Amino acid sequence: MIVTPQTFRFTEPLPLRSGAVLPAYELMVETYGTLNADRSNAVLICHALNASHHVAGWYADDNGQPLARSEGWWNNMIGPGKPVDTDRWFVIGVNNLGSCFGSTGPTHVNPGTGTPWGADFPVVTVEDWVDAQARLLDVMGIQTLAAVMGGSLGGMQTLSWTLQYPERVRHAVVVASAPNLTAENIAFNEVARRAIVSDPDFHGGHYLREGTLPRRGLRIARMIGHITYLSDDVMNEKFGRSLRSSDADDPAAAAELAYRYSTQEIEFQIESYLRYQGDKFSEYFDANTYLLITRALDYFDPARAFDNNLTAALGRARAKFLLVSFTTDWRFSPARSREIVKALLDNRRDVSYAEIDAPHGHDAFLLDDPRYLQAVRAYFEQTIAGGVA
Amino acid sequence: MIVTPQTFRFTEPLPLRSGAVLPAYELMVETYGTLNADRSNAVLICHALNASHHVAGWYADDNGQPLARSEGWWNNMIGPGKPVDTDRWFVIGVNNLGSCFGSTGPTHVNPGTGTPWGADFPVVTVEDWVDAQARLLDVMGIQTLAAVMGGSLGGMQTLSWTLQYPERVRHAVVVASAPNLTAENIAFNEVARRAIVSDPDFHGGHYLREGTLPRRGLRIARMIGHITYLSDDVMNEKFGRSLRSSDADDPAAAAELAYRYSTQEIEFQIESYLRYQGDKFSEYFDANTYLLITRALDYFDPARAFDNNLTAALGRARAKFLLVSFTTDWRFSPARSREIVKALLDNRRDVSYAEIDAPHGHDAFLLDDPRYLQAVRAYFEQTIAGGVA
Repeated sequence: MIVTPQTFRFTEPLPLRSGAVLPAYELMVETYGTLNADRSNAVLICHALNASHHVAGWYADDNGQPLARSEGWWNNMIGPGKPVDTDRWFVIGVNNLGSCFGSTGPTHVNPGTGTPWGADFPVVTVEDWVDAQARLLDVMGIQTLAAVMGGSLGGMQTLSWTLQYPERVRHAVVVASAPNLTAENIAFNEVARRAIVSDPDFHGGHYLREGTLPRRGLRIARMIGHITYLSDDVMNEKFGRSLRSSDADDPAAAAELAYRYSTQEIEFQIESYLRYQGDKFSEYFDANTYLLITRALDYFDPARAFDNNLTAALGRARAKFLLVSFTTDWRFSPARSREIVKALLDNRRDVSYAEIDAPHGHDAFLLDDPRYLQAVRAYFEQTIAGGVA
Repeated sequence: MIVTPQTFRFTEPLPLRSGAVLPAYELMVETYGTLNADRSNAVLICHALNASHHVAGWYADDNGQPLARSEGWWNNMIGPGKPVDTDRWFVIGVNNLGSCFGSTGPTHVNPGTGTPWGADFPVVTVEDWVDAQARLLDVMGIQTLAAVMGGSLGGMQTLSWTLQYPERVRHAVVVASAPNLTAENIAFNEVARRAIVSDPDFHGGHYLREGTLPRRGLRIARMIGHITYLSDDVMNEKFGRSLRSSDADDPAAAAELAYRYSTQEIEFQIESYLRYQGDKFSEYFDANTYLLITRALDYFDPARAFDNNLTAALGRARAKFLLVSFTTDWRFSPARSREIVKALLDNRRDVSYAEIDAPHGHDAFLLDDPRYLQAVRAYFEQTIAGGVA
C-alpha cells in the first residue's frame, strides 16, 4: 500500500488548556481505505510519543515502488486484510500539534516573531490534541467515528475522545495505556527532560536560532525511554550479559571475549544497543517536541477534576471499549488498564479486555503478537462491524 | 558514639584484575568497638555505590559533640546495642579504592604525572576491593572475620570474600544483592555514565585539570539512580501526582494548585525531589568515581568463569550465610537473592534467608524495617555469637 500525506490548514484559532491560543495551524494527515457513503466507517488512529500520521503503508520512491524503511509505524495492524482492515475501514492518521513530523510545532516559524517557535511553542495537552483532531474530522465531514484507537499516549487520546466527544465515538480501542502517569512514570520523563534542558546546546529551547541541536541530551532521553519500553525479561533474553561482538554469528568467538576494563568504551551489547538507539533518535527528533509530548503525558489525568475518582470521570463516556494490556509492560502495567476497565464497568459501559501474556514489555503494542493482533481483529470484525451491520 | 577515621598507607603494589598495578595507595578506615584478645570478633562492612568507611556513629564538632548531619550511613544497624552490636563486635568500615571519600581514587594525584588521576585511574573490580580489604586485615592482625556484611554492591563484595578468601570468613551477610547485574541494571548504569561522559565539562575525565566539574551529568546520573532505588509503590505513596507545594502542611491549599503548563518549571513534587537529590549529589560526588563504581557493579559475575554456573562458582565458599532481600526491590529483586540461596544450598552450605515484605524498594536495606533489623540482630546474636561461644 503506497500512501501520501496531506496537509490540512486551519485558520480558526485553537484555544488550548493552558489558556494560550494557537492562532492558525496545520495538521499532517494520512488516510487509508475509502470513506463509505454514510460516512460511518471512519477509524481515527492516535499516535504515541515519537510516532506520526504515517501509520500504515509505505511511501513511494521515484519509480513508484515502496521506499526502503518508509513503513508506517502500525503497518502490522492496519492495512488491506490486516486486523484493522482498510478494505472495510477508512483509517485516519494525524500528526499531533507540537510534533516534529509536519504538523505545526516548535520547529515551525512563530508568525508573531518570524523565528522558530522553539521553547515558546505553547504547551499542548491530550485534550488539545483531541480538539484539533475533532476539527479535522469536521473538515472531512465525519460526524461519528466507528472507532478511535491508540496505544500508550495514543490510548490516552482515545480515552479522552470518549469523554470530550462522547457522541462522536462508537468504539474506543485503548492499548497499553493508563488513566494517568504514576510518580515513577513522571520521574523518568523528568530525568529525560533535565538531560535535554541541561545540554549546553539547548539554549533555553532556542537552539534553532542559535544554530545548534541538543543532541547529547536527546540521546540520554531516548536511552532512558528505551529502557522503560522493554521488559527486564526481554532485555535479558536479547542482550543478557553478552559482551560486544562484531561477529554475532560466531558464538564461540563471542564466548571468548574478555572484559576490556574500561568505563567509557562499549563492553556489553546492551550498551551498544542503547547508544545506537540514542544516536539514531537524536538525528531526527526535535528536543522541544520531546519536552512537550512528555509533558502532555504527565498532565493527562481525567480523574483530577473529579476528586481523583476515575469512575466519576469516565461517567461521560458513551462508547464501547476494547482495552488491551501486556503482562510484562512495567511502564503502563495491566493494573493501570484494569483501573480503566473497572471504572467503565462501574458505569455499566460495554467493555472487552484482553491481557496478553507477552514478554516484550511496553513495546509489545507495536509488535506481532498473534493473540494481540487476533483480539483487535475480532473486535473490529465482530463487535464494530457487527454494530454497523 | 563519636568516631574518627584513620588512614592506612600501603606501599606494596596491588595487582588489579584489569592487568594494571596500583603502585601505592591509602585506605580510609573506621573501626567501632574493641578487637578481642583472640581477634575473633571482627566484622567487616563493605559499602555500596555512594557510601564510605563512615558506617556508624557521628563525627565530633569543635566541642566534642556529635556534628550535625555526620551520621554514619548504617548507623541504624551498627553501634552499641544495635543489631550489629559494637559492644560485642569489632566493626571495620573501609572506603574502597577509586572512591572519592579519602581512599586513593581519581581525585588524588597520580604519582606518575603529578596531576590528578582523573580518567587514568585504573578500573577496579569487586575482587580488587576485596584484595585491598584483605591486606588491611593483614595489617590489623586479623586472620579470620567473624562476619563480612554488605548491602547491594556491598553484598557483592561480601559474596566475593567467601570465594576469594574462603578460610578467612566465618559468616557472610548479603543484603539486597545479586550474583551479577541484569541487562536492565547495566542499561541504567550505562545511561548514567553517558550522561556524565557527554557533559562538555567532563573533558574526557580530566575535568580537575581543566578546572571544571561535570555537574550536569552527575545530576542526571543521580536522578536515574534514585528512581531505581525506590519502588513504584513508595513513590506513589510519598509523591503520587501531587503538585509542587511550598506549604505541605496545608493539604487544602495543595489541592487547589493548578497546572502551570510548563515543560521546564517544576510541576510535580517528584520532580522537585529528584532535582534536589541530583543537585545535592553533584556537589560532593566525583564523576570518575561514579564511572568506576558502576563499572565494578557491571563486571561482577563470579559465575562467568564457571560457564555461567553459579552453583559451580560458589563451590569454593566455606562461610555460613544470611541473605536478606526486599519484596519491592526491583533493582536487586528477591529472585536474584534466591539464585544465590539455591546455589549455596546446592553446595550444602548453611544458609538463612529472609525475604522482607517492605514497600521501600532497594532503599529498604538502609531503612528502619523492624523485621529486617531483627533478622540481622538474631543472626548475629544467635548464629554468629553462638558459634564463637
